[in-house]
Amino acid sequence: MSKVEEIQSYLQQNQIDAAFITTPDNVFYVSGFKSNPHERLLGVVIFKESEPFLICPQMEIPDAKDAGWPYEVIGHQDTENAMEILAQAIKGRNEYPATFAIEKAQLIVERLEALQHSFPQASFVRLDEKINAMRVIKDEDELNKLRKAAELADYAIEVGCKEIAEGKTEMEILTAIESAIQEKGCKMSFETMVLSGPKTASPHGKPGARKVAKGDMVLFDLGVIYEGYCSDITRTVAFGEPTDAQKEIYHAVLAANTNAVAAVKPGVRAMDLDKIARDTINDAGYGEYFTHRLGHGLGISVHEFPSVTGANDMTMEPGMVFTIEPGIYKSDVTGVRIEDDVVVTNEGVEVLTKFPKELIIL
Amino acid sequence: MSKVEEIQSYLQQNQIDAAFITTPDNVFYVSGFKSNPHERLLGVVIFKESEPFLICPQMEIPDAKDAGWPYEVIGHQDTENAMEILAQAIKGRNEYPATFAIEKAQLIVERLEALQHSFPQASFVRLDEKINAMRVIKDEDELNKLRKAAELADYAIEVGCKEIAEGKTEMEILTAIESAIQEKGCKMSFETMVLSGPKTASPHGKPGARKVAKGDMVLFDLGVIYEGYCSDITRTVAFGEPTDAQKEIYHAVLAANTNAVAAVKPGVRAMDLDKIARDTINDAGYGEYFTHRLGHGLGISVHEFPSVTGANDMTMEPGMVFTIEPGIYKSDVTGVRIEDDVVVTNEGVEVLTKFPKELIIL
Repeated sequence: MSKVEEIQSYLQQNQIDAAFITTPDNVFYVSGFKSNPHERLLGVVIFKESEPFLICPQMEIPDAKDAGWPYEVIGHQDTENAMEILAQAIKGRNEYPATFAIEKAQLIVERLEALQHSFPQASFVRLDEKINAMRVIKDEDELNKLRKAAELADYAIEVGCKEIAEGKTEMEILTAIESAIQEKGCKMSFETMVLSGPKTASPHGKPGARKVAKGDMVLFDLGVIYEGYCSDITRTVAFGEPTDAQKEIYHAVLAANTNAVAAVKPGVRAMDLDKIARDTINDAGYGEYFTHRLGHGLGISVHEFPSVTGANDMTMEPGMVFTIEPGIYKSDVTGVRIEDDVVVTNEGVEVLTKFPKELIIL
Repeated sequence: MSKVEEIQSYLQQNQIDAAFITTPDNVFYVSGFKSNPHERLLGVVIFKESEPFLICPQMEIPDAKDAGWPYEVIGHQDTENAMEILAQAIKGRNEYPATFAIEKAQLIVERLEALQHSFPQASFVRLDEKINAMRVIKDEDELNKLRKAAELADYAIEVGCKEIAEGKTEMEILTAIESAIQEKGCKMSFETMVLSGPKTASPHGKPGARKVAKGDMVLFDLGVIYEGYCSDITRTVAFGEPTDAQKEIYHAVLAANTNAVAAVKPGVRAMDLDKIARDTINDAGYGEYFTHRLGHGLGISVHEFPSVTGANDMTMEPGMVFTIEPGIYKSDVTGVRIEDDVVVTNEGVEVLTKFPKELIIL
């Protein structure tokens, strides 16, 4: 069953007349058409019975058709009211939905108000959970793309390690990594992070002109997009012999990572995994320095459902892909984060990111 | 008056109790704190009288304070309900807003529903137009950043032109450009476009492994971020002697660009500028191949208010910054787009992008 047919069947089962999808990643998921329309409208409307359609800026119509969308594509010009064209297209199918399913965690208020204006009797329910439930289980084709994306992330870390040298700036190392990935015809899945020395202790720090020096630890956090699917890896390496305090933090994070990875299997809850990593770090005495969730879902989006936190009691199932990325950020010693991408399998876990995790001293 | 004070004064004048701002670029504009929180809540709440606050992920509190935000910063953990913490912080100031101003073109439905749940009596009005009206007029500090960003974009085009050589791929040329900008400690403001040969005729085409060959035209569309402000430039150059048909298209686009640029001054309407460019291209016989608006506002966002279209009767005022980017896309000949960033001055126009526009034959 295609993604469109699966949503149609969901609409039929739940007595919902139409689904309106506008998140670029969800549009890609259901249509195969990947585009960043900025503030312009890009959307897919799926009905219980009538033929679905895709609406996009006029000039993108050929790209949408090339992407393999088999149904109608409706264009809009910058001078037109795109939401009005959408409403007319719905009414043109003799559809007057009493209930719309919308992405409440994504749709902007203005577009909801436009729908309310065109369909004043309509009510609006959430489509988010259905789309999340579909996207969270990756099929074999998606897993193959995620494997390739992870392989490229491993390669990017390898390039980064080779670039580390006395006096090189974080930005120079970052540039070498991104160039190597671009030469493979791919793009990064988010802004590459190369942090050195004390900056490793800032979980969301920005790479800059700081020069790497012997005695620094260097933290890489990066990912690559392969055919629309993202990887996300973090490795922390030592440039020169680390201090005992740095080694202790490294080994606490490594143990948290490997303990959580080893616990991945069908039936384990997200919160259980978070707890295993957090307990490991607590036991090592660094609990207060692990200041973020354990991980997040990964797929078309680099951050997607589910969130792997201590508050999420969701049960893991085969085909789910997420990150495991414990960290300790102690500004007077170092920051360390070690992040892998994992798939839940029938038997347990497949780790997609394969770059070594034992402490590397360059 | 600070941006926060200007919004407070607007709330007072319009009997609005509170403004809720969540768009990262608007948060940066009012607070000085630039962050991409992904799906996490980042927001600023401004009241008529009470002290404003910023809410962000717990681990970003130090960065928000470092950015110079002088008021309270409230953190939330991944395990917490951030919108509930926000509601409590509002009530903790003894504020029970009857009217909220929100960014209807940006705020997601789920967050609106959370506010409606916490403040069931409240009504919600648009803040969009006020923020747009503030952001659209750039002050001297902002203009200086935009000048630097444009200078870097000129440099990036120069690098791109030098890289063009027989057999080089679009991605190789793109990599050289991005590396050169990264070495300056800056990032691109959007995905760099390097398109060659027939691909120039796709306004939103994607760079790839196509090798540049003599006889190709090559289109660069790129921009750079300097201290939070964006540039956006397009140049199209010829690699080897172009055909007469290609030259004719180039000169039609160049005339459209220079005619529209020359018409920029206080009092001209966006639609007038669009018409001048469109008439020039129509007169040359290529009207049907100019398939998009003339331009868009530019500042903290690479696409921002106003949209320079044939439907926008907005009058230009000193301090406004936008792009002028006519194009002709004729798939059997070539695509050409020439894009400048301009500022409306008291006297007329200042063109920020200075890379030559006469046809360059490499």
